[in-house]
Amino acid sequence: MTARTSVTEVPDLAAVRTRVDQILDDFLTHKARSAAAQKMPREVIQTLHEFLFAGGKRLRPLLCVTGWHAADGHGDITPVLKAAASLEMFHAFALIHDDIIDRSDTRRGKPTVHRTLTARHSYGRGAAAAGHVGTSAAILIGDLALAWSDQILHTAGLTTRQLTSSLPLIDAMRTEVMYGQYLDLTATGKPAEDLRLALAIIRYKTAKYTIERPLHLGACLAGAPQCVLDACTAYAIPLGEAFQLRDDLLGVYGDPGRTGKPTLDDLREGKATVLIALGLHRASPAQRACLAGLIGNPHLTEVDAAEARHILTVTGAGSAVEQMIIDRHHEALTALGRAPLPPAVVQTLHDLAATAVHRTS
Amino acid sequence: MTARTSVTEVPDLAAVRTRVDQILDDFLTHKARSAAAQKMPREVIQTLHEFLFAGGKRLRPLLCVTGWHAADGHGDITPVLKAAASLEMFHAFALIHDDIIDRSDTRRGKPTVHRTLTARHSYGRGAAAAGHVGTSAAILIGDLALAWSDQILHTAGLTTRQLTSSLPLIDAMRTEVMYGQYLDLTATGKPAEDLRLALAIIRYKTAKYTIERPLHLGACLAGAPQCVLDACTAYAIPLGEAFQLRDDLLGVYGDPGRTGKPTLDDLREGKATVLIALGLHRASPAQRACLAGLIGNPHLTEVDAAEARHILTVTGAGSAVEQMIIDRHHEALTALGRAPLPPAVVQTLHDLAATAVHRTS
Repeated sequence: MTARTSVTEVPDLAAVRTRVDQILDDFLTHKARSAAAQKMPREVIQTLHEFLFAGGKRLRPLLCVTGWHAADGHGDITPVLKAAASLEMFHAFALIHDDIIDRSDTRRGKPTVHRTLTARHSYGRGAAAAGHVGTSAAILIGDLALAWSDQILHTAGLTTRQLTSSLPLIDAMRTEVMYGQYLDLTATGKPAEDLRLALAIIRYKTAKYTIERPLHLGACLAGAPQCVLDACTAYAIPLGEAFQLRDDLLGVYGDPGRTGKPTLDDLREGKATVLIALGLHRASPAQRACLAGLIGNPHLTEVDAAEARHILTVTGAGSAVEQMIIDRHHEALTALGRAPLPPAVVQTLHDLAATAVHRTS
Repeated sequence: MTARTSVTEVPDLAAVRTRVDQILDDFLTHKARSAAAQKMPREVIQTLHEFLFAGGKRLRPLLCVTGWHAADGHGDITPVLKAAASLEMFHAFALIHDDIIDRSDTRRGKPTVHRTLTARHSYGRGAAAAGHVGTSAAILIGDLALAWSDQILHTAGLTTRQLTSSLPLIDAMRTEVMYGQYLDLTATGKPAEDLRLALAIIRYKTAKYTIERPLHLGACLAGAPQCVLDACTAYAIPLGEAFQLRDDLLGVYGDPGRTGKPTLDDLREGKATVLIALGLHRASPAQRACLAGLIGNPHLTEVDAAEARHILTVTGAGSAVEQMIIDRHHEALTALGRAPLPPAVVQTLHDLAATAVHRTS
């Protein structure tokens, strides 16, 4: 571990959030202008803008900037903020496609993009035709968000060294999250006790994508040595797992008024979560038969959901997941305690971990 | 116009095709190895590989390499071939999502990716659930193909100058084609006489994407001056329009045994093609009413299609489109005659134009 003498500022996360939002807003304003000049439909950018600004924790951009501070980044931070904003645009892509795949009606308390576009294109079309146009339009808007996340990164004003060192990282991140999503999709609807699979899914689709890679990107832009990247990983993987485990609990036990999404979706879709795997593993034969009938049932009612929730609680699956969150949070903090990072950054990562793990939305 | 003294080789397009295929095969083989090591599902790469190698003209890679020769590219051509291959991987993404949007059952004479995956995931699922999983899996495989097209470009071994000059071009190309697709989607199912809209769609979704940008990419990798890029554009836009007009004719009049796709799809979907716009414009009131009832009807039969085809023929819409193809082909060749390009490249572009315009598949 290298002794660090330089004083690193505490990253001002509220300011980062504001500047990232401004970058995204500016980018889309610019796009709207050129779209208008080319007589392209306004709704593409309008829909994407509404989605991006309906909420979101901006967790990935915050972690990216924190990663830059972790590696003692110096000089103009604007290109780093733009690279951070590109992660948020990528995330918009991921969520828009994810909501199609999960058949979710709401996100951030509002209709999902494919539902919004279905409503917009329903005039003169039957329900099935409108649904198809809305979903197709959402696929394309997601594709554009992915392409535009590239463009934001490419035009961030990074140095050549920064650009060429970050591209492999971005490429790896994308492959990881898409594989995670693929595993998630193909496991969905087939509730199983396979804890190993459920953990592999959250490692790829969340832990690496949401925590590790954003930290790595920022650190890499600052020219981080391998020991800093390794320290980020040691903190990120357990924290990211805890983050997704909390998400899974909120997906079943959460308050829809706070999470912005119903607590029926995960159960109806039959998501292969750790919670479900543990529930099935710990259930009596009668409970298991009951769970198997409820989970993945597209017509699941609130009463059914309450029954499933009850079984997950009395089998102790819910509290086992809470314990896994506590253990992983602890593991992340232990790694942080050993990390060769500036104290201000350690404090920020400490606070971010608490927020990620204890959140209610 | 600069006098050119250097002798440019005739691009050997058959050899280019072979090397591009080898690059794609090597890339996916490498991906398959790391996927296996990470216990990721084999079917992602297997499906993408089958799709890429089921056929395809490799037109974009061929044009990219021709663009490089057009600008007198010198030195190792391998990075250029890899950049060319990245266009084909991007095209796989575009086709996979396009087939979902167009609800196409076959492509290149085989089931489309979403249909293949629906069949693969039908065990233990109802038809609707299997269809949803298959379509979702195809969305994700398309997303991966897009991300991997980036990775192929990033790891092509381009010089820094080549990389940084090609990224804005790739970004522009992606925005253009996705906007073209969006216009196409939202105009589909609403047959109209709007010739201007039908032409805007083919300019964005085909002319720029299929011909102009691939030529630009190759030329840009060779450090082309603006006059070469402009010459490429003057050739590419009319040729690209002719290419898509031919596609539209084949979509209605083609031989499915040669095109690999049925001649009902375009009519059933109610594609806003130039052919349909002209047909509606030239139709008598009775013919127009008949066309309006047939085009966009998802239950269109072969008999209905024959009736629509008959009206499009007797109104002269079919031959008007043939004439538009001839005019644009001529315009492209005239531009080529004036272009400051090496004679060998002019010959290649001349031959490519003939193939693009006169093809039957």
